[in-house]
Amino acid sequence: MKRRLPARFFAWHGCPMPRLDFWYEFASTYSYLAAMRIEPLAKAAGVEARWRPFLLGPIFKAQGMETSPFNLYPLKGKYMWRDMARWSEGLKLPKFVPPKSFPAHPLAASRIAVALDDAARPDFTRAVYRAEFTEGKDIADPATINEILKKLGHDPAAMAAKSGEQPVKDRLRANTEEAAKLEMFGAPNFVTEDGELFWGNDRLEQALAWAKKK
Amino acid sequence: MKRRLPARFFAWHGCPMPRLDFWYEFASTYSYLAAMRIEPLAKAAGVEARWRPFLLGPIFKAQGMETSPFNLYPLKGKYMWRDMARWSEGLKLPKFVPPKSFPAHPLAASRIAVALDDAARPDFTRAVYRAEFTEGKDIADPATINEILKKLGHDPAAMAAKSGEQPVKDRLRANTEEAAKLEMFGAPNFVTEDGELFWGNDRLEQALAWAKKK
Repeated sequence: MKRRLPARFFAWHGCPMPRLDFWYEFASTYSYLAAMRIEPLAKAAGVEARWRPFLLGPIFKAQGMETSPFNLYPLKGKYMWRDMARWSEGLKLPKFVPPKSFPAHPLAASRIAVALDDAARPDFTRAVYRAEFTEGKDIADPATINEILKKLGHDPAAMAAKSGEQPVKDRLRANTEEAAKLEMFGAPNFVTEDGELFWGNDRLEQALAWAKKK
Repeated sequence: MKRRLPARFFAWHGCPMPRLDFWYEFASTYSYLAAMRIEPLAKAAGVEARWRPFLLGPIFKAQGMETSPFNLYPLKGKYMWRDMARWSEGLKLPKFVPPKSFPAHPLAASRIAVALDDAARPDFTRAVYRAEFTEGKDIADPATINEILKKLGHDPAAMAAKSGEQPVKDRLRANTEEAAKLEMFGAPNFVTEDGELFWGNDRLEQALAWAKKK
């Protein structure tokens, strides 16, 4: 009989953990839920989550949609707002507050997220989502982003400058092109090392189980 | 301290169980998964599931869609077929076989389901889904439906006659109109007694928990 050791044993001993790519977009409501859930679940599964921001705009456009499906199909949109309120309550997150304008412009926040290093990206991402979906703030407003950066100990002016540099812009564009190549059509997504695509916050557990199996 | 008795205690003593309406459509792949899952989960939750067939055609048309979103958005469609294969494997259902033509014409099967009584509807529904999604059969072919009815101990000729009667047609139309009034935009759906709508096979557990809470 083969004995399986717990994932934390391998992590402890420096053995590489299986990886799961977490693809999210800042205007996406269900990406927010996934961002709030993924860390403890990935840790418990012994899976390393890699946070990868991308833009849904070009992905929607390639499917013939000029805006979010939640705007194109109003009944689906109305349901989504209700579903978000229920999930927020169930997860004991702060009360969900639909943004005044949806979807938000995600470009500035996305470039900052790309410019930050892997270790800093999750905290920044969660703070942006909290501002957007629980505090009624506009994430396209530089004041919103600057306040978040300051609170997290980053230099807002330096980060604004860095996020405007060509290599950062190129990295975000490359992420979005990779998302298209992986045949994503919405957000969030989880992609395992063997290329299995899982779409939606509600597939997080299945994606982690798949990543762990390998 | 208030002591809560298990749901089966109330069921045993004739106290009415909370009810959950299960709204499904015969061409819908995720309705198939929900149909295969709901009975044991509802029983464990002490919730009575009421099976309610309806037609998605008019629901899609009202949103400006002439066919299934899985056909209108091919990437989403491609993902759905993969997702169905994964779910089928995870649930240990027979191997998932995408039907030759999608979506199937659900009218004949839906009218039979409406014509059957509440106790007979679940077995018939599951048998139709198995034929459609695991045996490569066309559910619009009377031979498929007749074979299912015979195996379940019904008289195919009598059921065909009954399902063509006006009151049966009216009941199916009324179901679909009620679905529209409940603001459904896809299938499957679960609706609690207090009118809470849950959309999608992956919301079944949440819907049962909500129904139970009341």
